[in-house]
Amino acid sequence: MAPPQQNMAAVCYGRDDLRLVSIPIPEPAFNEVVLEVDSCGICGTDVHFLKEGGFGDQKLIRPLVLGHESAGVVRKVGSSVTHLKVGDRVAIEPAAGCRTCDLCKVGKYNICLNGKHCPTKNHDGNCSNFFAHYADCCFKLPDHVTMEEGALLEPLAVAVYAGRRADIRLGNSVIIFGAGPIGLICLVVAKAMGATRTVVLDLAKAGKRLEAAKKLGATAVIPIGASDKEEEIVKKIHEVLGGPADRVLECTGSQPGMRISIKSTRNAGIVCLVGLGKEEVQLPMVDAISREIQVITVMRYNHDYPAALEIVASGYVDVKPLVSHHFALKDVNEAFRVAASGEGLKVMVHLTPRDSNNPTKFVN
Amino acid sequence: MAPPQQNMAAVCYGRDDLRLVSIPIPEPAFNEVVLEVDSCGICGTDVHFLKEGGFGDQKLIRPLVLGHESAGVVRKVGSSVTHLKVGDRVAIEPAAGCRTCDLCKVGKYNICLNGKHCPTKNHDGNCSNFFAHYADCCFKLPDHVTMEEGALLEPLAVAVYAGRRADIRLGNSVIIFGAGPIGLICLVVAKAMGATRTVVLDLAKAGKRLEAAKKLGATAVIPIGASDKEEEIVKKIHEVLGGPADRVLECTGSQPGMRISIKSTRNAGIVCLVGLGKEEVQLPMVDAISREIQVITVMRYNHDYPAALEIVASGYVDVKPLVSHHFALKDVNEAFRVAASGEGLKVMVHLTPRDSNNPTKFVN
Amino acid sequence: MAPPQQNMAAVCYGRDDLRLVSIPIPEPAFNEVVLEVDSCGICGTDVHFLKEGGFGDQKLIRPLVLGHESAGVVRKVGSSVTHLKVGDRVAIEPAAGCRTCDLCKVGKYNICLNGKHCPTKNHDGNCSNFFAHYADCCFKLPDHVTMEEGALLEPLAVAVYAGRRADIRLGNSVIIFGAGPIGLICLVVAKAMGATRTVVLDLAKAGKRLEAAKKLGATAVIPIGASDKEEEIVKKIHEVLGGPADRVLECTGSQPGMRISIKSTRNAGIVCLVGLGKEEVQLPMVDAISREIQVITVMRYNHDYPAALEIVASGYVDVKPLVSHHFALKDVNEAFRVAASGEGLKVMVHLTPRDSNNPTKFVN
Amino acid sequence: MAPPQQNMAAVCYGRDDLRLVSIPIPEPAFNEVVLEVDSCGICGTDVHFLKEGGFGDQKLIRPLVLGHESAGVVRKVGSSVTHLKVGDRVAIEPAAGCRTCDLCKVGKYNICLNGKHCPTKNHDGNCSNFFAHYADCCFKLPDHVTMEEGALLEPLAVAVYAGRRADIRLGNSVIIFGAGPIGLICLVVAKAMGATRTVVLDLAKAGKRLEAAKKLGATAVIPIGASDKEEEIVKKIHEVLGGPADRVLECTGSQPGMRISIKSTRNAGIVCLVGLGKEEVQLPMVDAISREIQVITVMRYNHDYPAALEIVASGYVDVKPLVSHHFALKDVNEAFRVAASGEGLKVMVHLTPRDSNNPTKFVN
Repeated sequence: MAPPQQNMAAVCYGRDDLRLVSIPIPEPAFNEVVLEVDSCGICGTDVHFLKEGGFGDQKLIRPLVLGHESAGVVRKVGSSVTHLKVGDRVAIEPAAGCRTCDLCKVGKYNICLNGKHCPTKNHDGNCSNFFAHYADCCFKLPDHVTMEEGALLEPLAVAVYAGRRADIRLGNSVIIFGAGPIGLICLVVAKAMGATRTVVLDLAKAGKRLEAAKKLGATAVIPIGASDKEEEIVKKIHEVLGGPADRVLECTGSQPGMRISIKSTRNAGIVCLVGLGKEEVQLPMVDAISREIQVITVMRYNHDYPAALEIVASGYVDVKPLVSHHFALKDVNEAFRVAASGEGLKVMVHLTPRDSNNPTKFVN
Repeated sequence: MAPPQQNMAAVCYGRDDLRLVSIPIPEPAFNEVVLEVDSCGICGTDVHFLKEGGFGDQKLIRPLVLGHESAGVVRKVGSSVTHLKVGDRVAIEPAAGCRTCDLCKVGKYNICLNGKHCPTKNHDGNCSNFFAHYADCCFKLPDHVTMEEGALLEPLAVAVYAGRRADIRLGNSVIIFGAGPIGLICLVVAKAMGATRTVVLDLAKAGKRLEAAKKLGATAVIPIGASDKEEEIVKKIHEVLGGPADRVLECTGSQPGMRISIKSTRNAGIVCLVGLGKEEVQLPMVDAISREIQVITVMRYNHDYPAALEIVASGYVDVKPLVSHHFALKDVNEAFRVAASGEGLKVMVHLTPRDSNNPTKFVN
Repeated sequence: MAPPQQNMAAVCYGRDDLRLVSIPIPEPAFNEVVLEVDSCGICGTDVHFLKEGGFGDQKLIRPLVLGHESAGVVRKVGSSVTHLKVGDRVAIEPAAGCRTCDLCKVGKYNICLNGKHCPTKNHDGNCSNFFAHYADCCFKLPDHVTMEEGALLEPLAVAVYAGRRADIRLGNSVIIFGAGPIGLICLVVAKAMGATRTVVLDLAKAGKRLEAAKKLGATAVIPIGASDKEEEIVKKIHEVLGGPADRVLECTGSQPGMRISIKSTRNAGIVCLVGLGKEEVQLPMVDAISREIQVITVMRYNHDYPAALEIVASGYVDVKPLVSHHFALKDVNEAFRVAASGEGLKVMVHLTPRDSNNPTKFVN
Repeated sequence: MAPPQQNMAAVCYGRDDLRLVSIPIPEPAFNEVVLEVDSCGICGTDVHFLKEGGFGDQKLIRPLVLGHESAGVVRKVGSSVTHLKVGDRVAIEPAAGCRTCDLCKVGKYNICLNGKHCPTKNHDGNCSNFFAHYADCCFKLPDHVTMEEGALLEPLAVAVYAGRRADIRLGNSVIIFGAGPIGLICLVVAKAMGATRTVVLDLAKAGKRLEAAKKLGATAVIPIGASDKEEEIVKKIHEVLGGPADRVLECTGSQPGMRISIKSTRNAGIVCLVGLGKEEVQLPMVDAISREIQVITVMRYNHDYPAALEIVASGYVDVKPLVSHHFALKDVNEAFRVAASGEGLKVMVHLTPRDSNNPTKFVN
């Protein structure tokens, strides 16, 4: 099938104003490739731009192409690129540092102040037919890894990084706060890293997602009701884990999530904050300090695409059950509606007909 | 001079009710020594018991001997003790784990749930003429290290542990929040570990303590006024450090202290929480997460007495300027008044006449 | 069945001189339990004592009870023991520190100079009907974990510690040198920690063990022939792993094992030395230094029994395939002959009739 | 003074064949600056090229400009460089990674396989009047830091990295093997990081260098005689340090250096290998493994120039005593002779008249 003749993009013009518009087809710089995007998952941060105009320092200051969980096919190759060629199927890491600042030099490009992380206020995302990107941020997929799986490497890389920073070890008991796509994929990763006891918490209304957590192998799930008291939830967690948790992956960014995380963790345990949510959070710090709870934070990932790809390609983990909905690009508004509603798990937008670029079909 | 015939102790009977009473002279268990206490510094946690009836889980549930920053002379030796003998001058580490729980096995005895950490609600402190203690928690002082210096090893060990956990490195810029004894000794340690730019903050009314910080070599001090805005203080910190800080040692436990710590730190920097204060603290967590600020907590120390003793004995650091007031045991109420007032630095109670056990005199 | 009336023990009197002799039935100290040993696996270090009179500093200086991979039933309980009672089935960690030295205080009891690690030259092992041991080193087994599995926690703890120190991560490629019981169990652990590509090497004559490695899921095995050149083996490793290895678990202690480990590892990779073997080894250190290969060493384990028990009890790993031979205590000489010959995998000595203490039977 | 009209360079044409030849004056790429080199220290690796034709994989395959410990003045600025301008005085970090490989992404650019590390077989060094280099590898010097100090940041960065990787802590006892420039600067850094007991060892014939170590504050120095036995040296080290060492910085790359390092270190201690020397080294590995000695390796530095500059600029350390000889570029052969002879400490080549670019003079 011939590539499209134009570059249609899902552009956010303001709150609740997402439009499909034609933008220029890019040319690659010397160290870039131009990709024809195949699949693009919708992430909570994309939804934040559309529903709230951004988050933290990231505010909508101009029309912005959304989307950053993508895989595509290489269509053009920059002059100095050697490891990729036209036709290669790749997963696209959307985080790239400036390469030269203090943070990049020591490997923390994920929080580089001058990085090209997309979508951020100055950098378009890639829910568009074409996207030009640094070649070294594109990871070639083996034939048996599908484009959807390539797109899923993004949230998987988030979870791999979080699990790594949380230092999850064989035999750990782990709390996962939040049963959205990131929470669920963190569950998968925690188990892959050796967690033997896991509990996933979310609001009772997210019942389907908690069911998904159970299917994915959580030891237990705890639905949180509107009137549940903090100490009761802590008690329930201790009951299902057999005691305080070794580690927490907090994926909601909410105040109750962080508070219960601290209170449910054993002395010298680690609470890893993955989710961005409430700007200001009230936390029980005497408890945290006197029991030496470590509060570790993570943003994006830190060269975790290779590991994410390796564990998918080898069959070590299966991320396919994470996808619940599929939409064509023309239906991107409906895709965002479903993603924002929380009624499913991961919502995938297909910019080319589904499976057209997959030698092996995606079977959920 | 003959040891005293009775064991007078500074016992807290309730808020603002500190009495000198006679308690039994202890006998050593097989693995203990009985010490005649020489010097005992007063710490903020002792003051918490006296003024507020405790802190966190530690509440006064019976009359409690206060004091835990002590050095003394070995008077009796348990049957299986081999490394100490009667007459040895020792610093007394007041934290001991149960030796057999999961935390103790991996070296985290400082937060052992069954530890003998004194004074805590079930364990008397040692501002008393005699004290029985595990022999392995008593560290023999060389002749040229005075008893006061031995007593100061306790807050020094706190700072050594905090600096170690904060991972302070050569050339780091470091914020120290709080100019009390712990803050000042953290300043000394931060510089000893390689910090080249340091700033100490405290309330403007603690002006004398900020002056002491300056004398101890802080690059700058910042007095905080009642109406100072958070962002202004952050700006001042950045100005005096030449940018965001690499590390923070937060020694106040206050909400402004923790908030400004997070906001003033560079991406991927480390905020180490040393001080226990406000139970509930509102923190800017989107800022912390999106910039990957690590929030590390410390409680007591973790076998840091040997290093603390070594750096004092070798002259690598000088802790003597930390002591501002000296009192005899009979004046212990006045000693606590001064300690609680914040009008000086470290307040030392002498249970034997000052310098009577020091071959080398303490010269401040 | 009534406990035995005497305490028969497998005592090594010198090289190749192993006798079953009756030794006194011990009484528990206040912090000990007396165990009726059920199962005892034979380890390479036991064989070293019998065949070579010891290893490193550990030389036979008196008749020594061998065996240290054991599980048993609590028969007597010391006065201060609270977490165990008569009849409890437990795995016995044979390494205990002195609890009070610098190493124990920071959690390194495994290399405590005054530890009770058995069997070492001054401390009897526990291939005997009865054994008195620190209660905190005995880990209660759930009903569905068999005594053999309890005994296997010892080599499993070795592997868990090694994998932890080698920092094996999701998606790593890992070399395991040696296909003996430790090598095979390291393979199981490496995979459980996330290794997706594994290769096990051993001498060609250990063909059966390499077959076992294949069955346990190694990506590839490489038999080493007498005339194989180092560089050829390195090349084969790179071929099967798809490049240099991220991590190595070297379980032979041999010079070729260590040399090839270094040469096969990627820049900044980690070589973890698990096996004790040749006293003096010639290593390619310019290669190691210029490529920043880290050489990490491990001895015993470091409070890894809880994790080892957890991953067995939860079914996360299956160690039962590791056992190839079973013997009654009276046949202990034959058991050691088989263990020394390398003709099987783990050899288990049963001091009580097999499965008599297991509510759930051991099914290999 | 006007810049030179030609670019004279110290070019190695083969063993013992160093010539001053004119090479083209470079133009900067978009991300580079062209520097007029002011001062260039001579390092052991430069000498290796000249005397032995290289080391490890680095062999002379074409005429090669030597020198890499340099500081210079910016003369031309590439189109995208913003943080430097013509006339800036800078220290030149000679190690730069490819920015895009797995190692660079995680911050290990120092061992990047495609890096521009100079001088290596494919990359010229910078003992030449002009040198083009990545702008982000040039660190601007404050006025009071001299060009010689700027040049000394290179070996200082080696030591800062080594000390960091060796995890030297307050109160540590540290062995430094080798009293050449790297050994001496490692001594300075070890002390700056908190080492309170230090011992420097070298061959007895390097007596002057050992005297320098003493002047720089080593607790003790040990000259090694030709017939000294390993165990005797270990015993001497233990005597002067008061026991086994916590840490070792091995700067000779020699077999005795590495062997004695392992044997002199306490259980769980760290031996950090800094020096490249003998390709094949025989090591006591049963001792290393059974006592869990960690063998850490370091190559170059890892973004340690900023810390090195900071501790020099702040006066935290003084590296000026490290320089023993000064030569003009025309005398570069004599400079290399002195450097190779070991008769002095650091030998500095001045490519512009000494102190002509220093607002503040260099006073040794």
